[in-house]
Amino acid sequence: MLKAAIVGASGYTGAELALMVNKHPELTLSGLYVSANSVDAGKPICELHGKLQGIIDMPVQPLTSVEEVAQQCDVVFLATAHEVSHDLAPTFLENNCVVLDLSGAYRVLSEGFYPQYYGFEHTHSKWLDKAVYGLAEWNEAAIVGADLIAVPGCYPTASQLAIKPLIESNLLDDTQWPVINATSGVTGAGRKATMTNSFCEVSLQAYGVFTHRHQPEISSHLGREVIFTPHLGNFKRGILATITMKLADGVNQQQIAAAFEQAYQGKPIVRLQQDLPKLQNVENTPFCDIGWKVQGQHVIVVSAIDNLLKGASSQAMQCLNIRYGFPMLTSLL
Amino acid sequence: MLKAAIVGASGYTGAELALMVNKHPELTLSGLYVSANSVDAGKPICELHGKLQGIIDMPVQPLTSVEEVAQQCDVVFLATAHEVSHDLAPTFLENNCVVLDLSGAYRVLSEGFYPQYYGFEHTHSKWLDKAVYGLAEWNEAAIVGADLIAVPGCYPTASQLAIKPLIESNLLDDTQWPVINATSGVTGAGRKATMTNSFCEVSLQAYGVFTHRHQPEISSHLGREVIFTPHLGNFKRGILATITMKLADGVNQQQIAAAFEQAYQGKPIVRLQQDLPKLQNVENTPFCDIGWKVQGQHVIVVSAIDNLLKGASSQAMQCLNIRYGFPMLTSLL
Amino acid sequence: MLKAAIVGASGYTGAELALMVNKHPELTLSGLYVSANSVDAGKPICELHGKLQGIIDMPVQPLTSVEEVAQQCDVVFLATAHEVSHDLAPTFLENNCVVLDLSGAYRVLSEGFYPQYYGFEHTHSKWLDKAVYGLAEWNEAAIVGADLIAVPGCYPTASQLAIKPLIESNLLDDTQWPVINATSGVTGAGRKATMTNSFCEVSLQAYGVFTHRHQPEISSHLGREVIFTPHLGNFKRGILATITMKLADGVNQQQIAAAFEQAYQGKPIVRLQQDLPKLQNVENTPFCDIGWKVQGQHVIVVSAIDNLLKGASSQAMQCLNIRYGFPMLTSLL
Amino acid sequence: MLKAAIVGASGYTGAELALMVNKHPELTLSGLYVSANSVDAGKPICELHGKLQGIIDMPVQPLTSVEEVAQQCDVVFLATAHEVSHDLAPTFLENNCVVLDLSGAYRVLSEGFYPQYYGFEHTHSKWLDKAVYGLAEWNEAAIVGADLIAVPGCYPTASQLAIKPLIESNLLDDTQWPVINATSGVTGAGRKATMTNSFCEVSLQAYGVFTHRHQPEISSHLGREVIFTPHLGNFKRGILATITMKLADGVNQQQIAAAFEQAYQGKPIVRLQQDLPKLQNVENTPFCDIGWKVQGQHVIVVSAIDNLLKGASSQAMQCLNIRYGFPMLTSLL
Repeated sequence: MLKAAIVGASGYTGAELALMVNKHPELTLSGLYVSANSVDAGKPICELHGKLQGIIDMPVQPLTSVEEVAQQCDVVFLATAHEVSHDLAPTFLENNCVVLDLSGAYRVLSEGFYPQYYGFEHTHSKWLDKAVYGLAEWNEAAIVGADLIAVPGCYPTASQLAIKPLIESNLLDDTQWPVINATSGVTGAGRKATMTNSFCEVSLQAYGVFTHRHQPEISSHLGREVIFTPHLGNFKRGILATITMKLADGVNQQQIAAAFEQAYQGKPIVRLQQDLPKLQNVENTPFCDIGWKVQGQHVIVVSAIDNLLKGASSQAMQCLNIRYGFPMLTSLL
Repeated sequence: MLKAAIVGASGYTGAELALMVNKHPELTLSGLYVSANSVDAGKPICELHGKLQGIIDMPVQPLTSVEEVAQQCDVVFLATAHEVSHDLAPTFLENNCVVLDLSGAYRVLSEGFYPQYYGFEHTHSKWLDKAVYGLAEWNEAAIVGADLIAVPGCYPTASQLAIKPLIESNLLDDTQWPVINATSGVTGAGRKATMTNSFCEVSLQAYGVFTHRHQPEISSHLGREVIFTPHLGNFKRGILATITMKLADGVNQQQIAAAFEQAYQGKPIVRLQQDLPKLQNVENTPFCDIGWKVQGQHVIVVSAIDNLLKGASSQAMQCLNIRYGFPMLTSLL
Repeated sequence: MLKAAIVGASGYTGAELALMVNKHPELTLSGLYVSANSVDAGKPICELHGKLQGIIDMPVQPLTSVEEVAQQCDVVFLATAHEVSHDLAPTFLENNCVVLDLSGAYRVLSEGFYPQYYGFEHTHSKWLDKAVYGLAEWNEAAIVGADLIAVPGCYPTASQLAIKPLIESNLLDDTQWPVINATSGVTGAGRKATMTNSFCEVSLQAYGVFTHRHQPEISSHLGREVIFTPHLGNFKRGILATITMKLADGVNQQQIAAAFEQAYQGKPIVRLQQDLPKLQNVENTPFCDIGWKVQGQHVIVVSAIDNLLKGASSQAMQCLNIRYGFPMLTSLL
Repeated sequence: MLKAAIVGASGYTGAELALMVNKHPELTLSGLYVSANSVDAGKPICELHGKLQGIIDMPVQPLTSVEEVAQQCDVVFLATAHEVSHDLAPTFLENNCVVLDLSGAYRVLSEGFYPQYYGFEHTHSKWLDKAVYGLAEWNEAAIVGADLIAVPGCYPTASQLAIKPLIESNLLDDTQWPVINATSGVTGAGRKATMTNSFCEVSLQAYGVFTHRHQPEISSHLGREVIFTPHLGNFKRGILATITMKLADGVNQQQIAAAFEQAYQGKPIVRLQQDLPKLQNVENTPFCDIGWKVQGQHVIVVSAIDNLLKGASSQAMQCLNIRYGFPMLTSLL
């Protein structure tokens, strides 16, 4: 049994991770942590997340000694803020823990990216160089040997899974940028009290246009420019991404279907659709549903995920399963 | 034209009041105010409430000199916290303003009530004695001559309009307490950022059981005990109250119908229903819909209002219309 | 491995049952059925319920020969209309199947009840006499030996679990009827297209007041009269029931707490709360959360369940686990 | 006073029209009609639309003699299906009524368009030639003299108001098609019971991709190709459209701002935003909110309307006000 710790257990992704670790036959939950000054420190996790009552009653402890926690676990999930993950990961790694980081701190292999988009200097280039991007369906080989896995963001997961097959098969026109319009549930903004997240203020709107951190994450991993427009929707969980792309000359329906089928054959978490996906089919599931329509020289691909699961926690667990050679779907369904 | 000021214009009821004052042919909006240390001070009201854009762009000003504001208006709406209203009302009254207070500060004609339920000593007994309770359909005669009108709370409005006709007609069994179960939209908690109001945390639940301030407000004005259980619902506006009561011996359907019809004849804001009310029919309207069912010795009465309108702002405006002899529905529809 | 069939697999409870049977280590899904003339006959279940894609793709077959289906399974779940269940159960029973009926057809052990509340004559008194009411926490002993288990309705489950401990401990005043106000998500109305269920028409309202079938189901199993007022809420899943009761003379807080604790000790599906339950904590879970508040001679108990799970499918599975001696929580979490 | 009739009064747009006609100081409501075989025929409109109680109780009558109705009114609103409007309009026109058609029957000035996109032959080319497209902010001069006004669709209104200023000012790159992603509330699908509209099935999804009738409506009136992807959202009212466009070489922020300001100066219904629009600000209002962001060679414009008002009924009323020279905002606010 591997001992798994979760740092950042007070948030929504932390709660999902706790449920999955608890259910996993090869893992034992060694500890739940929050930052030392959190108001939640010391409370049972099921008091923060009522749905965990009767399942997990372990307290979330203040993370006072990182070293000590690192020595008591084999694997750690960092469901923490970007800069916190940046700071914590090395200590865990130096203590031979496998780190699954759900923040953006190790997602892009270029230090220069961090001051510009995340507002801090990246000072762990050694580890950044070794980090593996945990887009599970596309990076299995690298994940197998990884000690530091940077689990992709929610929008980047929905977007890349929808676009990558067409890029890999060279089906897109290079001169026009894919246009990604995506709508996320409010859990995407984290568990906190803000006017933006206030029930009475939530209403469909675009935000972070041209400035959202996930745009460069998507661009850098796809290797091409995209236009990414995130929206806040009036629902709790899920992301629906609608992506409009221009096809290369002469590309036909069959080539597109073939590209998707080839990319996701044997990948049970991606469910290719006859029709277009509907958000509720993926809520509370680890799946990514993808459908598309073609007309003339354009293709519209729609993908749907649960932002807290395939967009965060269940993808982290997929990566762990790959890393340790456990059956891919263990504890996911 | 009467000059009307609104104090507490940054909140949801303040915005509704501003719209109604703006539309009222006999009123001119003389000023919008917030407390001097509010982060909203100085902003145009339409920046706080986007739906007011193109309609009202007056700034909400810090309330630095109450005296000065009082001298510049004929009528003031206090959409402020209980203790703030308690403190402000006398200055306005002494400057000959008519005060429509939407807080609880002058609703119950007993000083002893305030320390217990509102947490402050009432020190304006002179004005408390003169305050008139603004339950518009039941208190017209007193409202006509009033200078200080205490507009009822949202739950008390929905509850009393449903229960009072049966009490006035002596149709209820005295030995059993009416059981009021009511569900309110989240605007009822005000415009602010709290975990309770956070989009992801809102989910149907009871709260304030046996301790909500509206229980004694209802009881004291009905003159009898009630059991009042408020709930928070996953919607923005509206209150639905379901009230279960035991009938006095031998009371029949016809007597109940007669009691309601007599109570609300010529009262256009109360719409008696053949069937039971549905919340969305009253959303964004000044109406109170009431329906009921009888079986054996029990009657169930259901009432529905928009908590921000009949439960606050439009009832205040009804009171103003009554006070000044304007047609009852002016600016309400 | 027991072979389990599901009749009525096109509905929401059918889909939940299919997921649980699929996950259960002691069950194998032998067939999914719908009535022979259903428009859904022949379709893969994952086409009807998109969330089942990648998990179960078995078609829902037209139920042409009940006899034949009965011979091919050990256990059958009837997620069918009341009269359909009434007609189907005997054939399955005569073929030695264990029947878990999720309809009302065998819930009340009095034939006279059916014409009055369900609109049909009950013609299988032999089986009705043998039917066991599947309120899992209260009826384990009888369920163990049962061949026909009548799984309780959703409202009756939420209501009885909240009231029964107080009745069993003789804590209630006999002269006043418990007042049950409950709000259900729209899935409670089944998977079908009606104006009432239309997205734009759904809005909090009471319905079926004094006439809902669940009132006599609750009354007959509690052995006392109740007033039951169901409401339709603007959410998909879940029931919150708020129950107001008068206590017998001299009953105190400790007695009430003791009654609940004693009733549900060792019953992991009922989670007693320090505070009052919130609906979302039980959504997509098999739990029933119960909390209460006492003041003077009144107690208010609030219970919350997922109407499709503890209110239907997961309670059926609990009964199956009890019936066959499988660990209580198998396939529930 | 002009006599105004509404055909199709049972639908959501019909109800909004009735409210606005009722409020309009220059109009009198001469009759409400539904098709002769409608189940709603004969019912008071406030029974179909509960929110109209106490405001309008006129019955919706079966439309048996079009001729007769036409002779009794000066203006008619056709809130009817496309083919029904196609058939009805000529009779009203021949009887000298001004026709405001809210369907698609007279929106595109090319007969060939109808069989392909609407499934019927257009047989009234004489009237089609005279029809004026009622995009109020852009077509005032033509509307003034019109007898047949084809009120634009909801998506086309949101889209064109956002795109047209940039086309008129020649700011767009001609080689790339504007990408319109829009999400509509469920009222957009009309007042009817379908599985798609069923509360439990509604969940964010794209639909009608490359095949929606509004695509050619938008394209033909803009005079250029667009890619239009409509989505169904989990809310009742409103449309949010996010439009991504490539700018012509060298176009800068100032030119874009100038184009919008020039286009909508003196047009109070379009509210240009500093930031991006939020859907709830336009719900239950006649406004169209428009905001935009520019980066490099791309602009993203977001527009928001209430689909039943600016996307249908209030735009029809705007057209009527223009047609008759009434103040633009009469009965809109």
